[in-house]
Amino acid sequence: MEQAIGVIDSGVGGLTVAHELMRQLPKERLIYLGDTARCPYGPRSKNEVQKFTWEMVRFLLKKNIKMLVIACNTATAFTLKELQDNLDIPVIGVIQPGARAALKFTKNNHIGVIGTEGTIRSKAYTTALKNINSTIHVNALACPLFVPLIEQGGATGEQALKVVEDTLSPMKKNNHIDTLILGCTHYPLMKDTIQSSIGKHVTIISSSEETARETSAILDIHNLLNSEGEIPKHQFFTTGELTIFRKISKSIFKNSNLHTVSIEKAAIN
Amino acid sequence: MEQAIGVIDSGVGGLTVAHELMRQLPKERLIYLGDTARCPYGPRSKNEVQKFTWEMVRFLLKKNIKMLVIACNTATAFTLKELQDNLDIPVIGVIQPGARAALKFTKNNHIGVIGTEGTIRSKAYTTALKNINSTIHVNALACPLFVPLIEQGGATGEQALKVVEDTLSPMKKNNHIDTLILGCTHYPLMKDTIQSSIGKHVTIISSSEETARETSAILDIHNLLNSEGEIPKHQFFTTGELTIFRKISKSIFKNSNLHTVSIEKAAIN
Repeated sequence: MEQAIGVIDSGVGGLTVAHELMRQLPKERLIYLGDTARCPYGPRSKNEVQKFTWEMVRFLLKKNIKMLVIACNTATAFTLKELQDNLDIPVIGVIQPGARAALKFTKNNHIGVIGTEGTIRSKAYTTALKNINSTIHVNALACPLFVPLIEQGGATGEQALKVVEDTLSPMKKNNHIDTLILGCTHYPLMKDTIQSSIGKHVTIISSSEETARETSAILDIHNLLNSEGEIPKHQFFTTGELTIFRKISKSIFKNSNLHTVSIEKAAIN
Repeated sequence: MEQAIGVIDSGVGGLTVAHELMRQLPKERLIYLGDTARCPYGPRSKNEVQKFTWEMVRFLLKKNIKMLVIACNTATAFTLKELQDNLDIPVIGVIQPGARAALKFTKNNHIGVIGTEGTIRSKAYTTALKNINSTIHVNALACPLFVPLIEQGGATGEQALKVVEDTLSPMKKNNHIDTLILGCTHYPLMKDTIQSSIGKHVTIISSSEETARETSAILDIHNLLNSEGEIPKHQFFTTGELTIFRKISKSIFKNSNLHTVSIEKAAIN
């Protein structure tokens, strides 16, 4: 199946999902659309997020994608069910794969979740976890400074560690968690800093890695895996500034796969 | 969906998958069938394995299962595709989930696989891995002594470590693997011994844990998860001796969940 996998995000965070898809599924072609011009989605109303998400989906459906990955936590929380019910192709979000991985890793049933204010307020992870196991203890914490810090290129170093230490301190008090879900697709970019703050005894779950892995499973059960050997040419689109999008792409991909990617501007509304 | 998940295995190895299903999906009810009387399937012909597997499947279909888990590597290798094509319910095997997890964990693209002689000879893991990423290096090794050792209750201790050390020595020579798949549902019972022999730098993938996790994903996308809160009563069936099956069940479940399980004898052919 040489058709591409479609990936949508409110901006650049979903590029960590794209990066993992390219690493775990090197024969698959991606078409990525980041709505950078209207990012962030977090503070927007449900109606607005649904409207914007459908605009992105329509853009990708015209490109004949075989599967859709919603690489944005807010869009997943507000549109996953609706898109699954209305599209003829498989649709996956970023919340459930992270929740399922955490349920696999935890030994003491105490799971931490960090994300943007919108994601934490939506209780989407708590719902996903407790829907499967109602005895799970969830410790959820909003980390509003992480995304701006990452977007400014400050994911590592002493300043980052200080921000992370301060933000995570309520979670570390009386902390029983043995598993922590990075409930925002930006956070894998500061995973090392988060790990050194929360401690080595905590298993960190990257929703980006887990979403890529479940995309592989879903393509397989739908007989949609690409069996061709050729390395595909990916297309990344942004609704915003090309220069910034290119710069952040470079920092995420560290140039490893970027020669196989074309980056273009898209008008979707 | 209060219907049960059906789990089949050539004998008792699949109980590690059942154990993980009960841990990761505590609201789901299981009906397990182990064909202990005709175990092992490893040395049997493809035709025979297909015939036996269909007999197990028909037994479970009469019990109105909502999904089928083939918790046996040999049966997966020989019947997965056929069962997926012919049944109206989702079907999952144990090989692909382990392969996908390994592709997620490996950083250096060198993956080891250990299994029974039949599984290694079938090259099912190598095919599953290379089908997704043709640049992966696979180091596959048959470990014919592990299952008999485990069945005799010798999964830990000095004798076990000696057998494991001797068996794994060809894999440890010029060893570049950073990820090792336990390609047999018995092997999680000696995971600690294998880890201490292969070294802490190698991530060990349990196909039992990974299959349970993908079962969760598949139930979710098919809207088949059980949302009821009640702890279910599981039914385990064996075609062989009840006493031995009970004893091994106890050693796997360490009595933790066994009060929710009834164990009965089944005639299926």
